Amino acid sequence: MVPHLTTALSGPLLELERQVIDAQGDIEHWLRRQWLAHPAPFYSSVDLRNAGFKLAPVDTNLFPGGFNNLNPDFLPLAVQAAHVAVEKMCADARSFLIIPENHTRNLYYLQNVAALADIIRKTGLTVRIGSLIPDLAEPLTLNLPDGSTLTLEPIRREGNRLKLDPGSASGTSFDPCSILLNNDLSAGAPDLLKDLDPAQTMLPPLHAGWATRSKAKHFGAYDRVAHDFAGLVGIDPWLINPIHALCGEVDFQTRDGEECLADQVAAMLAKIRVKYGEYGITRDPFVIVKADAGTYGMGIMSVKSPDEMRDLNRKQRNKMAVVKEGLSVHRVLVQEGVPTYESLNEAVAEPVVYMIDHFVIGGFYRVHTSRGDDENLNAPGMHFVPLAFDQSGSFCDCGSRPDAPMNRFYTYGVLSRLAALAAAYELEQTAPKSNDPHAHIRSLPGETPTLRYPEGAGASLGAARREAEAP
Amino acid sequence: MVPHLTTALSGPLLELERQVIDAQGDIEHWLRRQWLAHPAPFYSSVDLRNAGFKLAPVDTNLFPGGFNNLNPDFLPLAVQAAHVAVEKMCADARSFLIIPENHTRNLYYLQNVAALADIIRKTGLTVRIGSLIPDLAEPLTLNLPDGSTLTLEPIRREGNRLKLDPGSASGTSFDPCSILLNNDLSAGAPDLLKDLDPAQTMLPPLHAGWATRSKAKHFGAYDRVAHDFAGLVGIDPWLINPIHALCGEVDFQTRDGEECLADQVAAMLAKIRVKYGEYGITRDPFVIVKADAGTYGMGIMSVKSPDEMRDLNRKQRNKMAVVKEGLSVHRVLVQEGVPTYESLNEAVAEPVVYMIDHFVIGGFYRVHTSRGDDENLNAPGMHFVPLAFDQSGSFCDCGSRPDAPMNRFYTYGVLSRLAALAAAYELEQTAPKSNDPHAHIRSLPGETPTLRYPEGAGASLGAARREAEAP
Repeated sequence: MVPHLTTALSGPLLELERQVIDAQGDIEHWLRRQWLAHPAPFYSSVDLRNAGFKLAPVDTNLFPGGFNNLNPDFLPLAVQAAHVAVEKMCADARSFLIIPENHTRNLYYLQNVAALADIIRKTGLTVRIGSLIPDLAEPLTLNLPDGSTLTLEPIRREGNRLKLDPGSASGTSFDPCSILLNNDLSAGAPDLLKDLDPAQTMLPPLHAGWATRSKAKHFGAYDRVAHDFAGLVGIDPWLINPIHALCGEVDFQTRDGEECLADQVAAMLAKIRVKYGEYGITRDPFVIVKADAGTYGMGIMSVKSPDEMRDLNRKQRNKMAVVKEGLSVHRVLVQEGVPTYESLNEAVAEPVVYMIDHFVIGGFYRVHTSRGDDENLNAPGMHFVPLAFDQSGSFCDCGSRPDAPMNRFYTYGVLSRLAALAAAYELEQTAPKSNDPHAHIRSLPGETPTLRYPEGAGASLGAARREAEAP
Repeated sequence: MVPHLTTALSGPLLELERQVIDAQGDIEHWLRRQWLAHPAPFYSSVDLRNAGFKLAPVDTNLFPGGFNNLNPDFLPLAVQAAHVAVEKMCADARSFLIIPENHTRNLYYLQNVAALADIIRKTGLTVRIGSLIPDLAEPLTLNLPDGSTLTLEPIRREGNRLKLDPGSASGTSFDPCSILLNNDLSAGAPDLLKDLDPAQTMLPPLHAGWATRSKAKHFGAYDRVAHDFAGLVGIDPWLINPIHALCGEVDFQTRDGEECLADQVAAMLAKIRVKYGEYGITRDPFVIVKADAGTYGMGIMSVKSPDEMRDLNRKQRNKMAVVKEGLSVHRVLVQEGVPTYESLNEAVAEPVVYMIDHFVIGGFYRVHTSRGDDENLNAPGMHFVPLAFDQSGSFCDCGSRPDAPMNRFYTYGVLSRLAALAAAYELEQTAPKSNDPHAHIRSLPGETPTLRYPEGAGASLGAARREAEAP
């Protein structure tokens, strides 16, 4: 069930994979130190694009919604990683409130919520699902495709804590220790979630929501990660990093900012052509234009010429102008298009890798039978092949050929962890100053980081952190 | 491949399993707090006995030697757990030196060393195998049953660090960051290993070796763990804890201490009969007499009457008088015998559960076709059934019946973690005062533990630790 690359396996990617595998020791050592200084988000999923000549993350989701698509054989791995995340972030927790998206008809999304709840429950935590659906007055039980049910409950705020009404006859409210957001808050954080008791840990923090998040900031952070990683491994960072630029004031309806987009597309296509020339790649470059805070595959187009940005028809404008929750798009990311050279049963495929904390816990291929290798696959008609990752992606078999499936998935796991690390950087940068969950770990520029780990065994952690923090 | 209990599944064990499963939330929460205060050993394996009416650990190995017998499907789980252990204990490490037993002809043991090295390598660490074989002058490469090879290398001491000669043409010595003992040091820690640079982390610490370790101390620590756990779950601690006593000055050759043994056996049989009466168990009780520092299944006998201790013949005396490395036995543990009611293809079986850090990573059944349910199975003729644990043992499916395999293994995983926790207590108690790896975490009696975890998210860790430390 491992998809075959449709390219001959002889281009720079094989070389890149060999270099990643050869540097496994340095990479894991470097990542260990990075995670001490920059704690990973509670969970994440990363869309990768494998172009044969280039392998890069193209989107990082901090509210992953496909846990139902993971290989069930890896459930123990997910549970163990969740144990570690809970130990680190809320060791004293007994209960989680999961807040999902407001969908009630997208049963596959709800099946994802059930799968996520199952993972958390298997760590020994009590889990209930609280919904932000505005008019939800009482618990709503929905039937899932697998025959089970999921109950969404209305959330009450009491003082600065979120609670649910007592379940059954217990008589006391459900007062969760931690809140796990599986809602990307595209429309902004509702007041209900603001200024909560810090002891009721919010995972990930509120500013990870799309109302504040920016793909440009994420890829800006990824630039740093890719630069440092490429230096470590001795590769051209372009091989793992799509070029990107931001147009900050676009209005697709009034056509404001159209020239910015056309200019950025032109400049980026020129840059890509230079790199393609350097590597002897003969295909036409393309660029992805997408909403800076877009999600669900909405507000995305694939462009091969700057003129396409000037010739948008009414339908295309409407499509680009709004994203999830009907929000208007004003900030637009222009990103180098990375073609996918992977296919499964002749349909175009791209890997999606799931992490809990900094551990790869599985993944699947997103497959689309009617899209091209230079198009967004996150679109109606896509399907998922959960069994493809029959290796966990967390280690390599260094004795095998680099194109052995285990090693390909190791490389995918490394690239995904780089994207999760970029998300950690990004969340540090965007955290409200008074509410930075990692403020105790990070140092200010020019300041010597303070050791706050235990002494003894911790001394090596401290040293690792000091060095990881060094510029 | 799950062995069937030969008993009807209706006795107190089912009740016990139900209670463990019902208390999963409390158990995992309690264990999380325990591990913060009492870090788990780097790795361990635990022999369990499931009597149908009672389920208890009967031996805890801190130098587990059966990694080759684990289900290979769980390799990712072992690698992930090893990642966590390395992060905690030696985050800055790049290389491990594994020091195995001095066997060169026990190829299955060496296959275990290769499997262990493979797990550690897959975390990205460089691993080489250094041997304590006294006359090993140059690297010795051995052929393993699976067709691979294992190279044992002579260890050099330079100042207070252990090194290996340069491999191949690199020219510089191998100077490992950490030393992973897979040698139980029955004959005592050689000078080579003493007073090493503390930065060259020794895992587990030297005092975990059998020259200093004592089964009586381990089960003394387990008494505390079982007492607290039984209180948490609301069960009789006897259901998970074999009664034990120590005879400290025994000489099987001169027959000194024989009366102590006979008296202890008599007293213990009486105690067991009382408990059997309480639970309506009609079988004859038995007692296991074993060397307090014994290993490899040596120096063990199963006894049903105190007279058996007085009537030992010459052969039996010789068998009990010496253990591994030809060491004389003077301290003898008398332990309540827990019959095993498990069988596989009509052969008597007992589960052995493996952990890295505090994570259950697999296990197998030790099976003996020619032993009874009241005998030691760790004896020539035993074999292993690695596929039995087709669930990971780290979580339960609380909706299933308690005798569903997943739930049985969850209970096994809980009992094993209790034994590992007892080992953590034990290592804290036996640590040399100047060299206690956990001294920074533990508090002295009556002292308020100091918080040394990071602030913020760490505050809950601190609080957890304070409460876990409270008497």
